[in-house]
Amino acid sequence: MTILSLTTDFGLLNSFVGVMKGVIFGIAPDARIVDITHDIPAQDVRAGSLTLWRAASYFPEDSVHVAVVDPGVGTDRRPIGARLGHQLFIAPDNGLLTAVIEAAEAREEVVEFFHLDRPDYWLPKVSRTFHGRDIFAPCGAHLSTGVPLDRLGTRIDDPVRLDLRHPEKTAQGWQAHITLIDVFGNLSTDLPAEVLPPGEEIRIRIHGREIKGLVESYGHARLGGLIALVDSEDYIEIAQVSGSAARTLGAQVDDLVEVYFKGGGI
Amino acid sequence: MTILSLTTDFGLLNSFVGVMKGVIFGIAPDARIVDITHDIPAQDVRAGSLTLWRAASYFPEDSVHVAVVDPGVGTDRRPIGARLGHQLFIAPDNGLLTAVIEAAEAREEVVEFFHLDRPDYWLPKVSRTFHGRDIFAPCGAHLSTGVPLDRLGTRIDDPVRLDLRHPEKTAQGWQAHITLIDVFGNLSTDLPAEVLPPGEEIRIRIHGREIKGLVESYGHARLGGLIALVDSEDYIEIAQVSGSAARTLGAQVDDLVEVYFKGGGI
Amino acid sequence: MTILSLTTDFGLLNSFVGVMKGVIFGIAPDARIVDITHDIPAQDVRAGSLTLWRAASYFPEDSVHVAVVDPGVGTDRRPIGARLGHQLFIAPDNGLLTAVIEAAEAREEVVEFFHLDRPDYWLPKVSRTFHGRDIFAPCGAHLSTGVPLDRLGTRIDDPVRLDLRHPEKTAQGWQAHITLIDVFGNLSTDLPAEVLPPGEEIRIRIHGREIKGLVESYGHARLGGLIALVDSEDYIEIAQVSGSAARTLGAQVDDLVEVYFKGGGI
Repeated sequence: MTILSLTTDFGLLNSFVGVMKGVIFGIAPDARIVDITHDIPAQDVRAGSLTLWRAASYFPEDSVHVAVVDPGVGTDRRPIGARLGHQLFIAPDNGLLTAVIEAAEAREEVVEFFHLDRPDYWLPKVSRTFHGRDIFAPCGAHLSTGVPLDRLGTRIDDPVRLDLRHPEKTAQGWQAHITLIDVFGNLSTDLPAEVLPPGEEIRIRIHGREIKGLVESYGHARLGGLIALVDSEDYIEIAQVSGSAARTLGAQVDDLVEVYFKGGGI
Repeated sequence: MTILSLTTDFGLLNSFVGVMKGVIFGIAPDARIVDITHDIPAQDVRAGSLTLWRAASYFPEDSVHVAVVDPGVGTDRRPIGARLGHQLFIAPDNGLLTAVIEAAEAREEVVEFFHLDRPDYWLPKVSRTFHGRDIFAPCGAHLSTGVPLDRLGTRIDDPVRLDLRHPEKTAQGWQAHITLIDVFGNLSTDLPAEVLPPGEEIRIRIHGREIKGLVESYGHARLGGLIALVDSEDYIEIAQVSGSAARTLGAQVDDLVEVYFKGGGI
Repeated sequence: MTILSLTTDFGLLNSFVGVMKGVIFGIAPDARIVDITHDIPAQDVRAGSLTLWRAASYFPEDSVHVAVVDPGVGTDRRPIGARLGHQLFIAPDNGLLTAVIEAAEAREEVVEFFHLDRPDYWLPKVSRTFHGRDIFAPCGAHLSTGVPLDRLGTRIDDPVRLDLRHPEKTAQGWQAHITLIDVFGNLSTDLPAEVLPPGEEIRIRIHGREIKGLVESYGHARLGGLIALVDSEDYIEIAQVSGSAARTLGAQVDDLVEVYFKGGGI
């Protein structure tokens, strides 16, 4: 009855994801499989890491998360498993777990890593190009049936980590960045709402445009207006009401978002 | 073992839908989740309403349908639940349920509405921008485990309704409209086949083109031909064999489709 | 607990696939439904056949595969069921099963065909345009609950077969063809790696470009380079590292891929 989530850059045009599920059900017929998304931008390990992190905390304890964004498939990059707090993760060792590792460490939870080096728990024949099917799906399926991580691999303490950007404090406020752009063109930033001084008016500059204050929700602003609000995971988000802020601003991931408090200059 | 369906405009590029499923399985580990579609045109409540209506009747009794097309998220629009005949529905109170309500009323089935005003059945923390995750998914999940609607909310009798178009009788036939355009470019109309006089030849005018008669199926016409037929829910549909009627005609939702019977003039 | 897979050209923009699942769960509440893909190019029976074949072998025994790419829906083409080795298949009789049939025959497995001619196992009302919902999904669901194929239909021995291309031996090597193009623009061919002389250098010509040798994986070549490798099902594949070979070459399905061994001329 364990939940097994999948996060990949495989898209749904091909049968890759379906095949992974066939493999999983062959090992764990009772798994509940959930697609987090298969539309991570191709080989964008960082976007995959942030997406997995933002989604994972909404899953029940003991969920198994299998993530595959894997430009190094077939090279000697390791497949790894991790216990992070009350959840389990399977991924290539390329930094894809960085954001969930950092989150677990910030919460001071259990953090354990394993090099998945036991072919008994893989498909009998491992290709050079599709470890999602041959290694990651089977290991995730075995985990979900209760096989412990230390049976699937050897403990390690040096998983590869990305150098994820973090917002920087300035004299007048914060220099934040766009982290994710959603399908509506809304721009998530890396600035948590909790760092803003409560009750104080803020101004946000992005691509030469200025936004004054935060609105409560999309419905609290005029059509077409560029707005800032607190997003569904409590980060500052830039949006355009009934429009695409990404398209209107020509904004891209990593672009600068400057947040000024009252009295801070421009 | 209850079926829980999801209909949204969230797309699959982001993790919104996956996160809703994580929340649902956390509350209802035995749910069978079915995606009706997540590609309702953004914020198009009417298209969502028609899509949900056309799909719901094919689901078993006691299915729970969670629908989220929600431009007013974060404002004071109510979240509602409904029992319509033998099925249950969860949605924002913005007209999204109009078509299924009208269908249940036409069949003289039980029709009950509830304002979902009991935060005990929501996620502990409710965002301003993602009630799909924080309110609708949890309420749907609780319903699917057997919690009755009157525990989730307070009975109401005034759900918001859209003014859905309906075809109009004319001297020579009917004035119908395009309701939905499918991925093949086929054009569904709001004209049920049963209103056509049996055995009588019809002519259909759309965007200045005329189609004579109904064919039995796509395979019964020449390649590239513009045809009319009875669609899979018994409504008149315009299609192009091995082509896109929508693209060929430049047709859009709400466009006029005139149906003439024999002897009716043009 | 049976796995029931779906392979169609319906896309996910509409509710077709969701409705099929509603029908399936109404008949087989315990089914585990897996989407192989719903993005077979519209009405491309050959692509559907190859996709189903490449995916099916990764599913457990007794899986039921429902495939619907059905340009002849509503004509008198038969709906068929098949037992091929340890798996079951439901499809229109238009060649969609050709590749899985050929594979089962090559492995000398059980091969049985049935004309699905028993309306008791269909939806009560069968449309002219959506047999996926009205015939194929219900028959697949009944199969998955244990109803045997010979209850669903009458035995036949003449299913429609496509004339699938196969690679041809030449004096200097092989003339192969592109069979499938994946979402990354990688080009699968119909040439199995096992026919290549082991240890011998090969050259591949495609669209006037020449590729020397096979690399072990995407990670074993320079960025932007055109490479050949053995794909995840042991066929020769053409790819571009961090690029789209399909776009770079303007390559399409069926295009010629010439493979030369050492000493073979150009």
